[in-house]
This record gives sequence, C-alpha cells and structure tokens, in this order.
Amino acid sequence: MDNQLLENIVNEVIKRVQEETYIEIEASGKHVHLNREAIDALFGTGYQLTKARDLSQPGQYACKERVTLIGPKGSLHNVVILGPERKESQVEVSHSDAVVLGVPVPVRESGKVDGTPGIVIASGSHMIRLDQGLIAAQRHIHVKTEDAEKYGLVNGEIVQVKVMSNRSLIFDDVMVRVSPNYETYMHIDYDEANACGFVKGTKGKILKKSI
Amino acid sequence: MDNQLLENIVNEVIKRVQEETYIEIEASGKHVHLNREAIDALFGTGYQLTKARDLSQPGQYACKERVTLIGPKGSLHNVVILGPERKESQVEVSHSDAVVLGVPVPVRESGKVDGTPGIVIASGSHMIRLDQGLIAAQRHIHVKTEDAEKYGLVNGEIVQVKVMSNRSLIFDDVMVRVSPNYETYMHIDYDEANACGFVKGTKGKILKKSI
Repeated sequence: MDNQLLENIVNEVIKRVQEETYIEIEASGKHVHLNREAIDALFGTGYQLTKARDLSQPGQYACKERVTLIGPKGSLHNVVILGPERKESQVEVSHSDAVVLGVPVPVRESGKVDGTPGIVIASGSHMIRLDQGLIAAQRHIHVKTEDAEKYGLVNGEIVQVKVMSNRSLIFDDVMVRVSPNYETYMHIDYDEANACGFVKGTKGKILKKSI
Repeated sequence: MDNQLLENIVNEVIKRVQEETYIEIEASGKHVHLNREAIDALFGTGYQLTKARDLSQPGQYACKERVTLIGPKGSLHNVVILGPERKESQVEVSHSDAVVLGVPVPVRESGKVDGTPGIVIASGSHMIRLDQGLIAAQRHIHVKTEDAEKYGLVNGEIVQVKVMSNRSLIFDDVMVRVSPNYETYMHIDYDEANACGFVKGTKGKILKKSI
C-alpha cells in the first residue's frame, strides 16, 4: 500500500469518526446559582456553602443547602444550590417547574439573564427577591478543548444531536461551548430528558448537517 | 413550453410540496379514558359523562367531570376525562406527572396497555384501581385519509417531524395513523411540548428521510 493511499484511508476514517461523535448526556434538574449578596441574605453574612458532591464539570458542585422558590402560583421546595458562588444569581427551572411557580420562563444561555423574570428565594425565614435571573437553560454541550479538536467542533458552533431511545429525537440548535476547563457532556433539562426517553448513560450523536 | 416540460415541473412542485408537509401540533395534558365499569364505580351506575367541549378529533370531547389520580408518592388532581367511554380504561400522563405519582410510566401507543402499571382513580369518595392502563402516549399524527393521499403518507408509517421554534428539534419515530374519521393533527405530551418550545399554533414539518 502506498503512503498516499494510506493517508487517504486514515483521513477518511477520521472524517467518519468525527461525523459519528457520541457525547454522554446529563439531565439538569432545577437549581440555583447564588452570588455573595444572596448567600449573605439567605444564610447569614460570610456564610460558606457546603459541598455535597462534585458535578461532571470540574470545580462545580452540588451544595448541602437547599432553598425554596416561591412564585405567584406555587412553590418548589428542596431546590439544590450549585457552587461555587457566582457574580450573578441565576435560577434554572424547566417549563414544567415554571407552570408550578406560575411564571412563564424564557429559554436562555446560562449567564444571559437581562430582561428575564424575577423570583423569590427562601431559606427558612430568610427571603430574597431576585429582580431577574429565572431561566430555562438552553441545551448545550460542554466540550473539553482536546475533544473539540478531535471532533472538529468550535466554540459557539450550533449542531444537532440525535438521541437514540424509545423516544428518539434530534435536538436542533444545540450550542457548543469549548473550554480546557470542561469535561465533555451535553446538558438538557428534565422536559427535554423526558421527551427523549433519557436514562442515565444515554448518549447523543452529534450531527453537523442541518435538516 | 411543451406539455412534457410542464408536466415535469408540476410533478416536481408537487413532490417538493409533499416533502414539505406542515401539520398543526397539539399538546395533550394528562387525561383519562374510562370504560362503563369505571364510570359506574366512580359516578354511579348508568351515569352519563357531560360533554364540556369538543376536541380536534371528530366525536372526541373533554368532559365536565374531573378525577384524581393517586400514586404511591403523590396525587394529581382535577384530571380531565375524555369521552366517549371506551372498551378499556386508560390513563395518559407525562413523565413529569409520573414523577409526582411515583410510578415509572412506559411510552405506549394508545390502546396497547398490556403489562403497563395500574393506578388508583378517585372521584369524591369513590375510588377504583386499574390493574393496568397507565401510559405516556407515543407521539403520533392523526391524518385524515384525503390528507394522507395528498401528502403521500400511509397508515402505520414512521416519519420524522421537525418543529421550528426557539427550541427547535426533530421528533424521530413519529407514528402516522390514517383514518377518514380523523382531522389532521400531531399529538405530543407536555414534556415534548416543553422540550420543543411549543405554543398554540406551532406546526411541524414532516420529513420522510431518516437521519
């Protein structure tokens, strides 16, 4: 076999593998990110959140402390706080959760909370009202830089992801976010998880072709 | 322009239109279908359900009467009954509803309830226990026979349906059901509706090509 032929075959195999990129999916339940001001108000000045378990993204963790979300129509109890603290508080719920609260919730990329609805957060008798920050998280894929290179993905790229299950579907408009600090996982919420027959370990196949 | 060319153009346009078939989508909330035995037990022997409003499918209607579903973990109140009565009782909920009840629910085609979980249904102090019949409905399209001919769809066919929205996705494995007694609508549940950014009037484009 000549070198050129070998090179062509290797390139073709790499191309095929890139075209069939499977990513592990995680479903995110409702959760809050709190800033220093919110932690002070809910738990006392200078309070430090207690790590309960690490999440798949390095440095991110679920806390022992829980809060209640209070909307005009109803409340959601025992809502997990994800650490570490952030510059801006943010509350992520599904549309199903939003129906319980009685607040229509927009789909937003994490951190893009301008103009989103506010919500009341309570811990025991302590209560704060966020003026904004209630969102349904836009589905996205965290991609570690070396995986991005391997799979031919770039930061900010929009892809489709096919989920094979007893309720197969293809998620459209999935945002790719690349960082050396990420582990490679796709994140969806529980409405999306329920709609696609998600179980722990479900993988999605990245499709770069639009249909 | 010669006749053959005209014919070719017309055929090509028809083909393209068929390939771009848009169907109105409806989201179904949790509901129950009751048989005579269940109606007798819940509302009294010989009781006739009261029509509250017609549904999109001819002859189908929502009833004034409501029931409570009782699971091992929780209850769902004010659940609508859809008429007319059926040979077999069936309860359709979303996975989100199933979490409240505390019963894992399988995705099934309507009517195919063999081996599905049971559930308790209550109306006031009257209560029955179905041995089976709790399902999450498999997404499907009701197609009127004349539309099926127009769109080139056949009964039992599996298609994909693309939904354009702020949460676009392509539903895979969508069952086509054709009948002269149907009006043409796609039915999904509220998990699926939330996952695809559904609002009243949302349409889906039928794709016959598999990806």
